[in-house]
Amino acid sequence: MTSDLVQNGAADVFGHPWLSGSFADAEVMALWSPERQLANMLAFEAAFSRAMGRAGLFDADLADEAASRIETATPDMAALRKGQENDGVVVPALVAELKKATGHASEAVHKGATSQDVIDTAMILSLRDTLRLLRARLERLQDAMDTLVQVYGAKPLMGRTRMQAATEITVADRIAPWMMPLATHIERIDALMPRVARVQLGGASGDRKALKDKAAMVSADMAQALDLEDAPRAWHAMRGSVTEAASLMALITGTLGKMGQDICLMAQQGIDEIAMSGGGGSSAMPHKQNPVLPELLVTLARFNAVQVSAMHQAMIHEQERSGTAWTLEWMVLPQIAQATGRATTAAQTICERINRIG
Amino acid sequence: MTSDLVQNGAADVFGHPWLSGSFADAEVMALWSPERQLANMLAFEAAFSRAMGRAGLFDADLADEAASRIETATPDMAALRKGQENDGVVVPALVAELKKATGHASEAVHKGATSQDVIDTAMILSLRDTLRLLRARLERLQDAMDTLVQVYGAKPLMGRTRMQAATEITVADRIAPWMMPLATHIERIDALMPRVARVQLGGASGDRKALKDKAAMVSADMAQALDLEDAPRAWHAMRGSVTEAASLMALITGTLGKMGQDICLMAQQGIDEIAMSGGGGSSAMPHKQNPVLPELLVTLARFNAVQVSAMHQAMIHEQERSGTAWTLEWMVLPQIAQATGRATTAAQTICERINRIG
Amino acid sequence: MTSDLVQNGAADVFGHPWLSGSFADAEVMALWSPERQLANMLAFEAAFSRAMGRAGLFDADLADEAASRIETATPDMAALRKGQENDGVVVPALVAELKKATGHASEAVHKGATSQDVIDTAMILSLRDTLRLLRARLERLQDAMDTLVQVYGAKPLMGRTRMQAATEITVADRIAPWMMPLATHIERIDALMPRVARVQLGGASGDRKALKDKAAMVSADMAQALDLEDAPRAWHAMRGSVTEAASLMALITGTLGKMGQDICLMAQQGIDEIAMSGGGGSSAMPHKQNPVLPELLVTLARFNAVQVSAMHQAMIHEQERSGTAWTLEWMVLPQIAQATGRATTAAQTICERINRIG
Amino acid sequence: MTSDLVQNGAADVFGHPWLSGSFADAEVMALWSPERQLANMLAFEAAFSRAMGRAGLFDADLADEAASRIETATPDMAALRKGQENDGVVVPALVAELKKATGHASEAVHKGATSQDVIDTAMILSLRDTLRLLRARLERLQDAMDTLVQVYGAKPLMGRTRMQAATEITVADRIAPWMMPLATHIERIDALMPRVARVQLGGASGDRKALKDKAAMVSADMAQALDLEDAPRAWHAMRGSVTEAASLMALITGTLGKMGQDICLMAQQGIDEIAMSGGGGSSAMPHKQNPVLPELLVTLARFNAVQVSAMHQAMIHEQERSGTAWTLEWMVLPQIAQATGRATTAAQTICERINRIG
Repeated sequence: MTSDLVQNGAADVFGHPWLSGSFADAEVMALWSPERQLANMLAFEAAFSRAMGRAGLFDADLADEAASRIETATPDMAALRKGQENDGVVVPALVAELKKATGHASEAVHKGATSQDVIDTAMILSLRDTLRLLRARLERLQDAMDTLVQVYGAKPLMGRTRMQAATEITVADRIAPWMMPLATHIERIDALMPRVARVQLGGASGDRKALKDKAAMVSADMAQALDLEDAPRAWHAMRGSVTEAASLMALITGTLGKMGQDICLMAQQGIDEIAMSGGGGSSAMPHKQNPVLPELLVTLARFNAVQVSAMHQAMIHEQERSGTAWTLEWMVLPQIAQATGRATTAAQTICERINRIG
Repeated sequence: MTSDLVQNGAADVFGHPWLSGSFADAEVMALWSPERQLANMLAFEAAFSRAMGRAGLFDADLADEAASRIETATPDMAALRKGQENDGVVVPALVAELKKATGHASEAVHKGATSQDVIDTAMILSLRDTLRLLRARLERLQDAMDTLVQVYGAKPLMGRTRMQAATEITVADRIAPWMMPLATHIERIDALMPRVARVQLGGASGDRKALKDKAAMVSADMAQALDLEDAPRAWHAMRGSVTEAASLMALITGTLGKMGQDICLMAQQGIDEIAMSGGGGSSAMPHKQNPVLPELLVTLARFNAVQVSAMHQAMIHEQERSGTAWTLEWMVLPQIAQATGRATTAAQTICERINRIG
Repeated sequence: MTSDLVQNGAADVFGHPWLSGSFADAEVMALWSPERQLANMLAFEAAFSRAMGRAGLFDADLADEAASRIETATPDMAALRKGQENDGVVVPALVAELKKATGHASEAVHKGATSQDVIDTAMILSLRDTLRLLRARLERLQDAMDTLVQVYGAKPLMGRTRMQAATEITVADRIAPWMMPLATHIERIDALMPRVARVQLGGASGDRKALKDKAAMVSADMAQALDLEDAPRAWHAMRGSVTEAASLMALITGTLGKMGQDICLMAQQGIDEIAMSGGGGSSAMPHKQNPVLPELLVTLARFNAVQVSAMHQAMIHEQERSGTAWTLEWMVLPQIAQATGRATTAAQTICERINRIG
Repeated sequence: MTSDLVQNGAADVFGHPWLSGSFADAEVMALWSPERQLANMLAFEAAFSRAMGRAGLFDADLADEAASRIETATPDMAALRKGQENDGVVVPALVAELKKATGHASEAVHKGATSQDVIDTAMILSLRDTLRLLRARLERLQDAMDTLVQVYGAKPLMGRTRMQAATEITVADRIAPWMMPLATHIERIDALMPRVARVQLGGASGDRKALKDKAAMVSADMAQALDLEDAPRAWHAMRGSVTEAASLMALITGTLGKMGQDICLMAQQGIDEIAMSGGGGSSAMPHKQNPVLPELLVTLARFNAVQVSAMHQAMIHEQERSGTAWTLEWMVLPQIAQATGRATTAAQTICERINRIG
């Protein structure tokens, strides 16, 4: 076995050498990858230096130079890891690396911002792109389901209530609760986006005091540079919108989990209400066609239904910065995003593989 | 001890003979009380009979008579309980009671509807009124916090990050993350209301087939009668908006839990950043002033953060009706509502009892 | 409608006028009823007074008289509720009531103990009796399942993996994972009992300082009187065993939830692997036989799987007493107990109603 | 940035390039690494082939040869990943790889076993080693805490109940609830080990039918080879002991989370009851000494308190194999193990860094 196996995080089903075959969503993974997280942090620092320069809080020329150097900086990973270990957050070490990288322009780096500004804004950039991507995928999924309705919708199907045969319905009736909520999820994303895709800027205790009367200007400038909404003040101790985003993603996986559960039940021998290509094999029973993707939708929904609890717990973000609650978000939010991403791609594949319903 | 103690549900901190002293919110309790649930179910059945009469699916006169009798019916509780036991849902027994109560008009009762229409619409009526009440309370709470800001906002306070002294801020900076999210919660309620406060009408398997070409008319009529939004089709197998309501209530308790945690920390001897009247006593230490209401805010937030997981699990509502997932909602949603209600009243009281901050 | 409906706690499915038809387990409810909680608290105070008398820390005669009067005291409920509201715990008000009830012997009441001693020991008495009851029920359930195996065990059944037909097994193979874990649960109860069924005695900050060199004697005396294990020191800030009890109950409902899910799947038309008497009816479809008790097992399992998270959160019981974490237990533990109790009675009924498997 | 960043699973705080500085526990990570998981699966297959050979179900010479080749096999990762993607489980692809690797001995590979036998036994080997490691660490941690008690235990400390000053206690009283539960956790590990560290062997539908009258012999043989307990039958559809292990790990992090919370509170300026070396720095406030390791203990406890809910949900493992519930375990159990491992090393470091308590 090659040694790069060991380097890979074992616990991570998303990045796992073989479990990723089920769980990975390459696009969402990329949005939350360490590489992207670092790029987002550098984008924050560059935008901050430039905005501070334009506001006259940093020397304008030094600020520009610092920003340019920050954008191409390649911080030492060992130093970042050591910094995270010592400080419980990577930013002090990152800033030290950036000061090295910016040389004589280093006085135009980070000063007036704080760790949580960097980490939260970087997180928001990943979250914004995740929500945009999910939105686009939900639209594609609506189309795929609409096609199913066009093709199979009129066919009769035994309605089942409490898992018992009830009265005859149509395939369109079964599909409606998979499809209709997607439009509502898109509405939710659109309503949430301006609440959550906002620059975080507060400085030491979050009061923007170091930015004096230029705080609003710096914040607005950064928001524009980063393609985020501006925020009238630091939101770092108000986690509601981030939690709402987590819950919204869990609503999406919930809808798709219901679809997955329905399909697993329809695929049972004796029920036989659906046929799909590409079912999973068994090591002991080669004849089997396991509904592995519909199952995965159920798993991902139950996973997110659990994780969302952690995000709600993390709303108890004490005082001007919680070391405990904030760190808890880091452990679960990227996983919720990836699970949701994977649910949307799996649902798309399922729709494309259905050969018969009803 | 009097025997009515035994009648009371022991597990229920909200209705408990003495624990209710901490947990009860009489207004929200009333909205979810069995009495109100029953009244809501009767309101559904009366509106249904009348709408069916107007649509010509029931004899119009019989429908009116049935509706009037339904509205004043007093179903036998033992029969309802027995029905719930046998059927896993109270509606078949309730309908039997209503048929008795309506006599010769009984053919204009319930026919074309189904259990979940009754239960879900009744639940929605309680939920709608809860959200309205919470909205009004959040506005009052904004005022109360605004008063705190007016009085104490300019006072200096040591900012604390990671529970350590950071830089000096003001009391207004500390209060902002308690108050600002309230406006966002109000926005969320307003956005959610039309998604969730909708009549549920589907009939046997949810396809409204028994209502023929009059389904939309009946549904619109009922929506108007019940002061709900209409729904283009049955939403009973799409639990997203109900789950969103649960999550929104947990967001509210999350914000107030953060406020509670902050106050508990400020109230520590050695920190002494707040003074309140009405603190709790101790059986062993009469001198103590325990911050029991701020503590309660933390407890209610953590409680809801847990319960919301159940609501997300319950989105996996299989096929045309899930006996398991639906029942799980019954166990937790009324508790989430009551916990949220209590958090808003406790927060209001706390604001009114604060004698000093900073 | 009668007014006693309103008195009932609405959120409480266990004590609800009609939902109790599905959810109530009268025996476990009684163990956690306010009446029993109060009786347990009085038992603590009586045992404490007597033990303190025997240890010479209270006047022996006064202690005996106080204990006798405590045992027949009928505290004023309004006063207890008011006390809970003020103090966040009922004990100061209870002690005031008991001082009134004991008259000149009142100096031999509670002094040296603290609120958490009373509440935690009272809770443990309910928990101990719950575990004993569950243990006895699990044994009866083993017998009932064994009977099923005797009668139907040899019949063939299609094994299902990933919800797909696999290879033929026997009914005994299907039942084994319902039955075998019961013996393990009994083992777990037996191992847990001495860890959890222990007297809690600590005094003001939990160090038993007020009991001087008699602390061990008083504790041992009380343990004997209350039929509990002694504890070498106060355990009130170590919640592991209480949480373990919650988790153990969730393990029990987990096993029974798996049984319930299996039966729901076996009961589907098209699968038809089981026949039961007493299935639930539908308001729209009188022909239906819904598997309402097996469904209930799934619901109760998922409910407990959620609640157990709160108990684990509550282990973060800060310093010498957590107002927040402790209170969270009160909201959840009695519900876990009742859900578990109901799962065992429902499973028993299911076993007795099965007319055919395979 | 180097490309190996991208290879790393972004969501995984444990294996993350810099977050690992806080979260990584190299030893536990290694136990759940893909490399170890694969080694464990190969160990299963080798032990199975040999046992089948000794039982006469495989040709003995071929079985030995197959086993030897299995032990040094290097399956193609891309094939494994593709297999996982297709089949929802890696084993069919792994078996195909092993058949290639064993050449003419390939008929003595896997036949009679099934995917879940391989995956579950491999998981159990990691879990067993995790529990052994945790046990050893808890003993070391007891020693470290005992040292603290020796050095600082007699010093006075203000007891705090409900976060308010209560009565004076000693440092030993504060430490007792951190230390005493460790012995109980060790007891729990010892009691659990024989219940959970068991070979899983069932074949296609879990009934060991393919092993005929040699099933017990093969199982016992494998148990010995793998240093596991034997099991009288397949336990794959009874997830209680695996869930119990998860809960036990959450109990451990719960105890340490309480310790962490206590220390965070003691470290507040104004309270100043503890001094530690190595506190974390801030990017904005170089003077700060943040209690980052105690905070981490709280975070890990809350994380596990959430995850344990997923394990309890996964007990509803339907029929002879649940694709959904089983997969959910894969997503959370390795994370629970790693979080617990890290909590034990962080607690150890904290004990060693304490310079003063009281």
